[in-house]
Amino acid sequence: MKDKLFVLITGFEKFGGEKINPSENIIKKIRKKKFDNVLIDTIVLPVSYEKSIKILEEYYSKNQVDVAIHLGQAGGRATINLERVAINLMDSIHPDNDNVTLSDKKIIEDGNDAYMTKIKIKELAEFLNKKNIPTSISYTAGQYICNEVYYFSLYNSEKSSNPKFSLFIHVPFLPQQVSEKYPKNDKLPSMPIQLQFKAVMEVIKNIHKFI
Amino acid sequence: MKDKLFVLITGFEKFGGEKINPSENIIKKIRKKKFDNVLIDTIVLPVSYEKSIKILEEYYSKNQVDVAIHLGQAGGRATINLERVAINLMDSIHPDNDNVTLSDKKIIEDGNDAYMTKIKIKELAEFLNKKNIPTSISYTAGQYICNEVYYFSLYNSEKSSNPKFSLFIHVPFLPQQVSEKYPKNDKLPSMPIQLQFKAVMEVIKNIHKFI
Amino acid sequence: MKDKLFVLITGFEKFGGEKINPSENIIKKIRKKKFDNVLIDTIVLPVSYEKSIKILEEYYSKNQVDVAIHLGQAGGRATINLERVAINLMDSIHPDNDNVTLSDKKIIEDGNDAYMTKIKIKELAEFLNKKNIPTSISYTAGQYICNEVYYFSLYNSEKSSNPKFSLFIHVPFLPQQVSEKYPKNDKLPSMPIQLQFKAVMEVIKNIHKFI
Amino acid sequence: MKDKLFVLITGFEKFGGEKINPSENIIKKIRKKKFDNVLIDTIVLPVSYEKSIKILEEYYSKNQVDVAIHLGQAGGRATINLERVAINLMDSIHPDNDNVTLSDKKIIEDGNDAYMTKIKIKELAEFLNKKNIPTSISYTAGQYICNEVYYFSLYNSEKSSNPKFSLFIHVPFLPQQVSEKYPKNDKLPSMPIQLQFKAVMEVIKNIHKFI
Repeated sequence: MKDKLFVLITGFEKFGGEKINPSENIIKKIRKKKFDNVLIDTIVLPVSYEKSIKILEEYYSKNQVDVAIHLGQAGGRATINLERVAINLMDSIHPDNDNVTLSDKKIIEDGNDAYMTKIKIKELAEFLNKKNIPTSISYTAGQYICNEVYYFSLYNSEKSSNPKFSLFIHVPFLPQQVSEKYPKNDKLPSMPIQLQFKAVMEVIKNIHKFI
Repeated sequence: MKDKLFVLITGFEKFGGEKINPSENIIKKIRKKKFDNVLIDTIVLPVSYEKSIKILEEYYSKNQVDVAIHLGQAGGRATINLERVAINLMDSIHPDNDNVTLSDKKIIEDGNDAYMTKIKIKELAEFLNKKNIPTSISYTAGQYICNEVYYFSLYNSEKSSNPKFSLFIHVPFLPQQVSEKYPKNDKLPSMPIQLQFKAVMEVIKNIHKFI
Repeated sequence: MKDKLFVLITGFEKFGGEKINPSENIIKKIRKKKFDNVLIDTIVLPVSYEKSIKILEEYYSKNQVDVAIHLGQAGGRATINLERVAINLMDSIHPDNDNVTLSDKKIIEDGNDAYMTKIKIKELAEFLNKKNIPTSISYTAGQYICNEVYYFSLYNSEKSSNPKFSLFIHVPFLPQQVSEKYPKNDKLPSMPIQLQFKAVMEVIKNIHKFI
Repeated sequence: MKDKLFVLITGFEKFGGEKINPSENIIKKIRKKKFDNVLIDTIVLPVSYEKSIKILEEYYSKNQVDVAIHLGQAGGRATINLERVAINLMDSIHPDNDNVTLSDKKIIEDGNDAYMTKIKIKELAEFLNKKNIPTSISYTAGQYICNEVYYFSLYNSEKSSNPKFSLFIHVPFLPQQVSEKYPKNDKLPSMPIQLQFKAVMEVIKNIHKFI
């Protein structure tokens, strides 16, 4: 292992009619931070079945990544969700930002049906909860671009160890995203950017403990 | 109307096995603040069917209150909940902190079945949401001490105009309350104390616009 | 008390884009039944702020009703919901079937803020659950036509004892209403018409025990 | 393909403090039925990490199964849930009926991380919904015995084509299971045994269309 782990952190552009995507906001805040124990790079990915993994493919062809941490918005979820599994499936009634709607398509033709992260996810969930960051483990990352990007990284991890490890983190809506849905907002959880950002910072700074 | 409105803000002690009650934390933060346009007083009430309204009764006998703002914890709710109605009923399978469990008891023998707040609650909900504080209107404050205290203030408001106005605000769990329930926390929304406090501060500072 | 109780049962026409309203289906099934211990009459009310209570007003002017049992659809609820309270408020972002949208209007100008049913609702809930009919007590009937009709009957009950008693029962979606929402149906509970009908039949046949 | 498909249908014994398991009730009803186009066999499996797959292992060693349809209870779910994925993981805070609690254990040491069913699950979901049976596709079968059994069959399907196809169907609570939880039942969906049974019968009788 090198002296410092090289960590790629990705977020997504806004989609689904939202005015912002918290994962993009987190990336912007991360870019202003300095890290002692890790080298980081960041990408904000398009919400596009096609472009998102093309960008990652090119990135992995040029960089050896130790840990890829992918962030995405999961409106309606209440806690920081550490995703354990990605499946070889693209299927949604919602079009992507290129207006492409896919049904029952594989992400990688010869890939396994699914891959699980090799990150010690239960230990990480306990670690974050002990720091008062509401965190849960999720067993489905959906069938949309979030799952696609995660599957792509886990597949690459399996085939070529680049990235060596991968983790997808789904984050809740921001408060303003819930506020603007009033009066239809009463069942919608939110989490301020400060707490979302803190969660991701704790993951980055302590990632060496969970690989 | 006097130059400055006199606003009573109450919270509750912890209950139901929780280690904290966010409404008490908010009260403690309010006590450190100075207000230009309102005079305030604060009380942290016991979660006791009997004591809670005895304390209020005595308070109203000695002070003329313009607006009583009662705060309480509503674990599981996702947004700041402005309660519109209180009903003349105490009924819960959970005992209070005096270990009293009540079933189908009236709060005030000769009181109406229910009272609605005279605060302009829809305008207030819109105001808070415009400030990016996720807020909803709720039509049930439960059948426990929260509802009892609200009913008592609304009844007094109706009978003796003391307080002149009353509002109950239910707040979600704090993040640490959700974290400590891991791994059974994945459906539990939370809201940090800063945002809860901001909500209550905005209500207090702007309450003259909504009466 | 007369030999036989006279029970009025009302349902509603379909609304909100649904193809059916389970409460109307229940009424149609009740009409084919004979009852030993009660005399019954039935009305299917329009989902109209104006017409629904005009019809009831005329009905009460011509008939002395012992118990008014109002049925309505509450899409998204999981169990038979016995409503305990109706409030003096009409307020919804959804228009009624006359395309009228009301905001913050009172139902009866000089009515109390709310009324609670005098039916022994907790005993009734226990009775139905013992018969394996999933039943809960609800403390909000909404702010739409269902609440309006309930409030109107409870107000009349208070003012003129006609009806002497009143109860609103909210029923879940029927299975076909959930099926047709696929693939957006995974969080939507349903209850077959047979079980909904059984619930209402048990209420009618045993209503004398709960007044 | 043989003239008639050989279909194994399994259910589970009760667990988790419940008095019944709807999947066992369905199996008992299936045993009384005759089928024209399929040969069937049924097993009620113990809720045991160890015994459940030992029984299946022995069964597959003696019988060539065309389609294995596994049924299990998923309390809290609202619709018939067709499970798409099983993961190579046993992990639950709840002990099984042998009082064994497992954390982060693989089901099959050299198995893939997960397998997806080869049943045409989206077509099947649409088929059932068109028959007014509320049905959804689920992407997580949990980390308990249900998932274990499903993973075991899918693994065998992959390795030895026995069973050739496999599907796990999660069913909601029965009404009596929700009734007995009163007054804590108001968010709990249920589905009567008749509708659950109808769902499974439709799957069995039409399974040839979805393989």
